[in-house]
Amino acid sequence: MKEWDRLITVEEMEAATERLLETGKKVGADSWQQRVKNQTPHCGFGEAGTCCRICSMGPCRITPKAPRGICGCDVHGIVGRNYLRFTAGGAAAHSDHGRAIAHTLYLAKEGGNYQVKDPEKLKRIAGEWGIETEGKDIYDLAHEVAETGLMEYGKPFGTQRFLKRAPEARQKIWEEQGIAPRAIDREVSQSLHMTHMGCSSLPEALIRQSFRTGLSDGWGGSMMGTEFSDVLFGTPKPIDTEGNLGVMEKDMVNIVVHGHDPSLSEMVVMYAQDPEMIALAKEHGAKGINVCGVCCTANEVAMRHGIPMAGNFLQQENVVLTGACEAIVVDVQCIFPALGPLSKCFHTKFITTSPIARMPDSDFIEFHEETAGENAKAIVKMAIENFDNRNQDLVFIPELKTKCTVGYSVEAIKKCLDGVTNSHVDELGTTKPLIDCVKAGVLRGAVAMVGCNNPKIRPDTYHIELMKKLLENDIIVIVSGCSAQAAAKAGLLDKEAAQYCGEGLKRVCKLVGIPPVLHMGSCVDISRMMILAADIAKDWGIDICQVPVVGCAPEWMSEKAVSIGNYVVATGIETFLGVNPYTKGSSEVEGLLQGGVQDWVGAKFVVDTDLDSLCEKMMACLEEKRAALGI
Amino acid sequence: MKEWDRLITVEEMEAATERLLETGKKVGADSWQQRVKNQTPHCGFGEAGTCCRICSMGPCRITPKAPRGICGCDVHGIVGRNYLRFTAGGAAAHSDHGRAIAHTLYLAKEGGNYQVKDPEKLKRIAGEWGIETEGKDIYDLAHEVAETGLMEYGKPFGTQRFLKRAPEARQKIWEEQGIAPRAIDREVSQSLHMTHMGCSSLPEALIRQSFRTGLSDGWGGSMMGTEFSDVLFGTPKPIDTEGNLGVMEKDMVNIVVHGHDPSLSEMVVMYAQDPEMIALAKEHGAKGINVCGVCCTANEVAMRHGIPMAGNFLQQENVVLTGACEAIVVDVQCIFPALGPLSKCFHTKFITTSPIARMPDSDFIEFHEETAGENAKAIVKMAIENFDNRNQDLVFIPELKTKCTVGYSVEAIKKCLDGVTNSHVDELGTTKPLIDCVKAGVLRGAVAMVGCNNPKIRPDTYHIELMKKLLENDIIVIVSGCSAQAAAKAGLLDKEAAQYCGEGLKRVCKLVGIPPVLHMGSCVDISRMMILAADIAKDWGIDICQVPVVGCAPEWMSEKAVSIGNYVVATGIETFLGVNPYTKGSSEVEGLLQGGVQDWVGAKFVVDTDLDSLCEKMMACLEEKRAALGI
Repeated sequence: MKEWDRLITVEEMEAATERLLETGKKVGADSWQQRVKNQTPHCGFGEAGTCCRICSMGPCRITPKAPRGICGCDVHGIVGRNYLRFTAGGAAAHSDHGRAIAHTLYLAKEGGNYQVKDPEKLKRIAGEWGIETEGKDIYDLAHEVAETGLMEYGKPFGTQRFLKRAPEARQKIWEEQGIAPRAIDREVSQSLHMTHMGCSSLPEALIRQSFRTGLSDGWGGSMMGTEFSDVLFGTPKPIDTEGNLGVMEKDMVNIVVHGHDPSLSEMVVMYAQDPEMIALAKEHGAKGINVCGVCCTANEVAMRHGIPMAGNFLQQENVVLTGACEAIVVDVQCIFPALGPLSKCFHTKFITTSPIARMPDSDFIEFHEETAGENAKAIVKMAIENFDNRNQDLVFIPELKTKCTVGYSVEAIKKCLDGVTNSHVDELGTTKPLIDCVKAGVLRGAVAMVGCNNPKIRPDTYHIELMKKLLENDIIVIVSGCSAQAAAKAGLLDKEAAQYCGEGLKRVCKLVGIPPVLHMGSCVDISRMMILAADIAKDWGIDICQVPVVGCAPEWMSEKAVSIGNYVVATGIETFLGVNPYTKGSSEVEGLLQGGVQDWVGAKFVVDTDLDSLCEKMMACLEEKRAALGI
Repeated sequence: MKEWDRLITVEEMEAATERLLETGKKVGADSWQQRVKNQTPHCGFGEAGTCCRICSMGPCRITPKAPRGICGCDVHGIVGRNYLRFTAGGAAAHSDHGRAIAHTLYLAKEGGNYQVKDPEKLKRIAGEWGIETEGKDIYDLAHEVAETGLMEYGKPFGTQRFLKRAPEARQKIWEEQGIAPRAIDREVSQSLHMTHMGCSSLPEALIRQSFRTGLSDGWGGSMMGTEFSDVLFGTPKPIDTEGNLGVMEKDMVNIVVHGHDPSLSEMVVMYAQDPEMIALAKEHGAKGINVCGVCCTANEVAMRHGIPMAGNFLQQENVVLTGACEAIVVDVQCIFPALGPLSKCFHTKFITTSPIARMPDSDFIEFHEETAGENAKAIVKMAIENFDNRNQDLVFIPELKTKCTVGYSVEAIKKCLDGVTNSHVDELGTTKPLIDCVKAGVLRGAVAMVGCNNPKIRPDTYHIELMKKLLENDIIVIVSGCSAQAAAKAGLLDKEAAQYCGEGLKRVCKLVGIPPVLHMGSCVDISRMMILAADIAKDWGIDICQVPVVGCAPEWMSEKAVSIGNYVVATGIETFLGVNPYTKGSSEVEGLLQGGVQDWVGAKFVVDTDLDSLCEKMMACLEEKRAALGI
């Protein structure tokens, strides 16, 4: 569409990728594009969720002639168990990230590698949790809060502390539906237990536990991941940066940070700015050191330090293919094992750092909170020294680059809203100005666009095209994770993008001084979206499921996305997926997820692989909510 | 073989099953035998472990033309991740059973449904854990120990308390190899995290975590399950009972308890003995109430109350097919969902009781520790009333029944050994008399035979035939779980079976007054075997891996079995499997599990699907250990 002509198009990005893949061919590199071809068609049983490998009597596959597994489990039990396990995998991964941050907080100290950067937030959390703050040394308090947080993973009694952040009506639903999550790890373990051979095969029970486990992630592990990251590294504020592959620098040492846990990337960013390191880089003939990010790590360091974002999930091989990547430094999750062999085709050092994510063909520099500084320094040094090995003949950095404003934490959004508040009569620090816009119809609602890329969808198209349509219809979009980076790469995080929006949204953006797509962070930061939705509901005096907001993961691929989907739906937010979560094989499971659960939590999943239809359904859902509210 | 002519043969058992399946046909019942036919052949990718469904980009399958998944993971990473997830499923299930018992202990009270039956054991555990016992009310102590036990699932720091029970050399190995397990649920969660998309794909890392997670089960959750069950329900002592399907009574109300957690079955047993209930049964025309067990629940109530054991895993449908089962009452794990539709073909009530194991076509009577008495009473009553509905035309109970002595806890074994000790000169309560027999060559060693049935092996043949061969070769056999019941059904738990053993073992059995196959309990009670092996090693002054003892799960099928295998190997005990754990697809994973891990822990897996060869390898391993010890 003409109106969006200032955006970088998917076609331009694809052309750049094609050019990079040519380099790849020269050096004998494999690529996900090739592997997708090799792996197509996928196994129909696996895709439908109708294959069971949970015990060694099988594997069993459900067909009309074999309607039950050897144990007698029917297709609904099998699909439901697979779904719960998928959820548990995601909740475990996300929450373990939160645990790592809690451990980092536990080790924070005055003058140490990790310090408390947002003491106010720390005190606020302590207050919520009933921890005395008065007269307490900030680091003593940090350790106490961290230990209390760590106990949220394993406490023998009680439910998650952060549930209290939700409106009371929502808390009541969680209690009544038996899905208020207890200790996070316990929900994960119970999910595995329930799906063990000879345990649960009743879809309702399996989906209820999926919700409970998801909630332990969203209102437990992920929320702690977000909150403790803010305490340690600062609560994000709007900051300008750049996006897309063009952020890599031809004449500099390029260090790409990739993964999720900011404990590592924060240190790499810090040591890359160290004068000693910069001098060393210059000694090696580089103009300096350029750190840029991929995946959620990119979001973390972008929103706290303005570090540029090179790309999202399906672009991780591209950064190596530029031939200009001295090191790709990774922590956990969503890291292609392909980076090992790929890096061997170039001079690139593939540096793994976490015992959680050990991969062949990598340099393993184990990263410890206690020795974070020296670990990071060693990594930066290794990258610099590797600049010597760069083969200039292979270097090609696509000239694609956008302007972005990132870092819209809930706190930052409220601060922006305060700017349009009449401070003489209105309360500050609320979401009320936003609510007023929605009530007035200036905004029709909001969509939380999240999740990964998946080769089953032409990469980034659903993210970008959906956002464009929503913006044109005065629906504000909040983003995180790889969706945020799709927006960044296209140029939708640029305040200038407001000019293309519908009249209402355009006005709001200009008035408040925000881009029409608000970058809220990484995938654990979907917890920020939960808090925002909860605050809106509370400020409005309604339950979350009544607010005209929906969630959308149009190109999701990971177990984390399913865990997220479960907690978003269980929070009362209708969730739209562009990829089926391996449940097609069971009418009962799909019937519940895409229908029946509405009666439990006031929201459900909508799965639609068609872009236009997905978008229409989202907008219809928002309008229905408006109608129900009489606005 | 002639020598074993007093045993019930597998052929006789199969004939009985055939007869029961005829009844099944009459009423239109499905059976596992039929479902195995429907599910054969199994998916080759699944069996080899080379299929990955961990993210929704796939599923991916490794072939020569597609050597990597879409993310770039190779076959070793995929097989390794599947193996770790399999282990985590088992550890979670087993340990959650332990947690349920810990919760029961936490709710124990004077005069309540649950009481402390073995205060000495409680005090011993408290002592080991550094909990003050002096002058403390036994129930206060119980609650303190229970809460400390519950914290073993989720404590943020430190490793499992029971690890200290192992010889110091073994503890050192666990520390040095990085496999000393931390909080149980944390190991489960970390296993899921490590296997999440884009995390670990290095076989070594995945197998190390499999060991750590397994150890959190064996020396954590399972051990607590065993120990707290003893505290609550009494530490088993030798007791006589009967085995095989003939234990069902034609003229009585038959209640079959099935599953794993004794909290339920103990109550059912108690209320089935209630005069009021017996009177009610008589009112309904029955001669009384007959409780019998299937699977591990059978082991639990057999060894504490002499309740007869109707059969093991693959016989669970048979109890319903007798037409004489008024109720099959289940808690968790290894329960065929098939029992739902099968019970509908008969008058049988299929009663599920646990939120962990919800199944279609069952009557769900949720069992709570707090209301255990009334729940159990309701169940017994439902069974009695259902006696009216029995269709006598369908009743056929095979006349197969054996004598068994069960209940050889470590404490009971030591007590037996005390009986052959010269109390004037020898220390009591040790394993030294046993060690002396082994040193002298009267016994060549011991085999811990455990695990399930699996249709991939002609049911019970491997268990029974291996036991016979080992006994003939003066190798004492300790058993648990479904292996114990295979022994029971054949008659190998009868003291009379000693007559068929080799001369050395025969002599030991007569002298000590034990059967040649010692029943040590249910599958969580493999922890008893670990304690026994640890005590032997300590009494002997060597490490566990030097003791001439091996483990064997010839017909295993569940994830729990793989968790067990991991902790048994990691404990230093060579483990022999008759079914491949879905690892055939990776030379690296098999190379480690069946070879490389020997360097880590002094033991490995041996997988051999051939009965004779499996047996020879076990005996050779024992002889090698003897030779290494110079005995």
